[in-house]
Amino acid sequence: MFFPLIQQKTFFSLFLCGVCALLSACGQEQQTAGSSAPQQNYEWKLVTSWPKNFPGLGKAPETFARDVERMSGGRLKIKVYGDGELVPGFQVFDAVAGGTAQMGHAAAYYWKGKAPAAQIFTAIPFGMNAQETNAWFHYGGGMELWREVYAPFGLIPFAGGNTGVQMAGWFKKEINKLEDMQGLKMRIPGLGGEVLKKVGGIPVALTGGDLFTSLQSGAIDATEWVGPYNDLAFGLYKAADYYYYSGWHEPGAALEFIVNKAAYENLPQDLQAIIDVATRAVNQDMLDEYTARNNEAMQTLKMKHNVVMRPLPADVMAGLRQAAQAVMAEQAAADPMFKKVYESYQRFQVGVSEYHQVSEVEYYKNRNPQTQP
Amino acid sequence: MFFPLIQQKTFFSLFLCGVCALLSACGQEQQTAGSSAPQQNYEWKLVTSWPKNFPGLGKAPETFARDVERMSGGRLKIKVYGDGELVPGFQVFDAVAGGTAQMGHAAAYYWKGKAPAAQIFTAIPFGMNAQETNAWFHYGGGMELWREVYAPFGLIPFAGGNTGVQMAGWFKKEINKLEDMQGLKMRIPGLGGEVLKKVGGIPVALTGGDLFTSLQSGAIDATEWVGPYNDLAFGLYKAADYYYYSGWHEPGAALEFIVNKAAYENLPQDLQAIIDVATRAVNQDMLDEYTARNNEAMQTLKMKHNVVMRPLPADVMAGLRQAAQAVMAEQAAADPMFKKVYESYQRFQVGVSEYHQVSEVEYYKNRNPQTQP
Repeated sequence: MFFPLIQQKTFFSLFLCGVCALLSACGQEQQTAGSSAPQQNYEWKLVTSWPKNFPGLGKAPETFARDVERMSGGRLKIKVYGDGELVPGFQVFDAVAGGTAQMGHAAAYYWKGKAPAAQIFTAIPFGMNAQETNAWFHYGGGMELWREVYAPFGLIPFAGGNTGVQMAGWFKKEINKLEDMQGLKMRIPGLGGEVLKKVGGIPVALTGGDLFTSLQSGAIDATEWVGPYNDLAFGLYKAADYYYYSGWHEPGAALEFIVNKAAYENLPQDLQAIIDVATRAVNQDMLDEYTARNNEAMQTLKMKHNVVMRPLPADVMAGLRQAAQAVMAEQAAADPMFKKVYESYQRFQVGVSEYHQVSEVEYYKNRNPQTQP
Repeated sequence: MFFPLIQQKTFFSLFLCGVCALLSACGQEQQTAGSSAPQQNYEWKLVTSWPKNFPGLGKAPETFARDVERMSGGRLKIKVYGDGELVPGFQVFDAVAGGTAQMGHAAAYYWKGKAPAAQIFTAIPFGMNAQETNAWFHYGGGMELWREVYAPFGLIPFAGGNTGVQMAGWFKKEINKLEDMQGLKMRIPGLGGEVLKKVGGIPVALTGGDLFTSLQSGAIDATEWVGPYNDLAFGLYKAADYYYYSGWHEPGAALEFIVNKAAYENLPQDLQAIIDVATRAVNQDMLDEYTARNNEAMQTLKMKHNVVMRPLPADVMAGLRQAAQAVMAEQAAADPMFKKVYESYQRFQVGVSEYHQVSEVEYYKNRNPQTQP
């Protein structure tokens, strides 16, 4: 490619060209490069709490990395690691805070040991759904509070997707009354687990990969996971006979991207903006995917695997609702930052749910009046 | 910056440097410049159907332009024009197709005269809400169909925000039964207008800016617009005594970005990606804003302006629902592309609404059981 070009030139022209190149290339072009930001390339690591490419949850960080690389023209390349590939899924927070990776994708309630208030940014039992939570994050002060909670750890959080309403879960025995929850060993994390404890159950902490065998062996009596799309992928229908749909513990579970603050601040402004906007796009993309795929998976569960989906009885829901209020009050009393975040969340929920009563709820009722309870 | 560097060099080293520069700069560096795309700057015009900076609708294109400029490091600057500033709001489609502007922000149902199927991409009476529509767009084949419908015009569409469920609107007289709709002159665009006609009403086409005076003067008997946030901004409560909330005509009105295809293809790939992702982020941002602001505005309407919000009677809703089915069947029979898009939409709606019955609807019911009808 290069030599044919040289051979056409005399020594003199080559010399002149050389001086010219020095004057222009070595001088001005460097200046140009300097003024439009030095085109430095960055290679980042992104650790996650999910199996690599797990449907929905694991797809989001891959989409994010692809978008960032495309938008930056390859200047910011982000390599995504599944649970355990670089660090275990429950060490994502520490890994990003400590700089082992520049970014993470996880769920904030995993970090309740670091900051109890973090739980609120994932979901609250009987709290807001996906649309409401996103409104609180971006127009109700939620993101500002989330940044405040993570600031002491040198981390910047971004909303990183939402699963929509999660199903109540898979049970080995039928639930007919609130007393049936007593002594029930159930995999359920975060505040939902605290609520289960309050009604006499025994919350168990397990990562997703252990759910199936624990349920099948009887080590646990029940488990929630996400919804039909993810539950089908784990084959949970093979390990439990009863699938209850009445979601209450995670009515719109928000995921998170976390970014090491020093690494973020080391980026030029355009790449910072690319991260800001790409996280926002993925935040919606995941909900779109779950909304579309959950129904397909529900049909497969029903038609192919003969799963019957049941509602939880009204008295069970009433008991859980009451227990949830008590749990939230206790958590708020125990931690001032939890209290501060919860007050903001609660104020927003009161308002938005009043509006959704005359908009979304009224509409669902009028669209399908025959299927209303 | 440059000469001090030269002065340290002997002629020989300068010569060597020159050759070196030729070998590296004139050869490889030019290659680098070529491969990382010449840093050309672009200035685009974006025309909209809204008053400049109108809450929600008009804010979205401003947010988009700001995000694109930040992410591109100023390489793509987009100037946003309000309704009438460069072209009238109803000429956005033609202006972008013809190249007067590279982009537009509008609502697809304004272009039913160009392509009847376009209406479906905004909203369908008794159709899908925002969350469902976004899932159809991005994971149910909706966007592919939208691109197909706009391709003959040299336009690329992107989902560009959503208002959520729109309110039934403002009426000068009380609506007690379906017969009260007969002879009613109401501003209501698109398929909703066709449904109104079917139950005996008279749909009127008016831009937003004319609503207040037309309603106040009695030129129209009723109008829908968006919801509390936008309705309050227009002061509609001063011109009509009855505010009905039971939304049915636009249960999740999607806005659109349209891009001139030739202009898009003229961009380097990184700037194309920036447009793709920025539209997606704004698509969610608008819904977040409406979700948060509608409630605040509803409280203002109720508390400050003594507005009473009412549901439409069940027999009115039943009549509208029946009329909507007839309208959709007629439209599908009249236009093959409308039929094709509607079949995709309908198939998706049947599935997603079955899933939302056990997730979103079940959850709303269990969260606030006392407020259920």
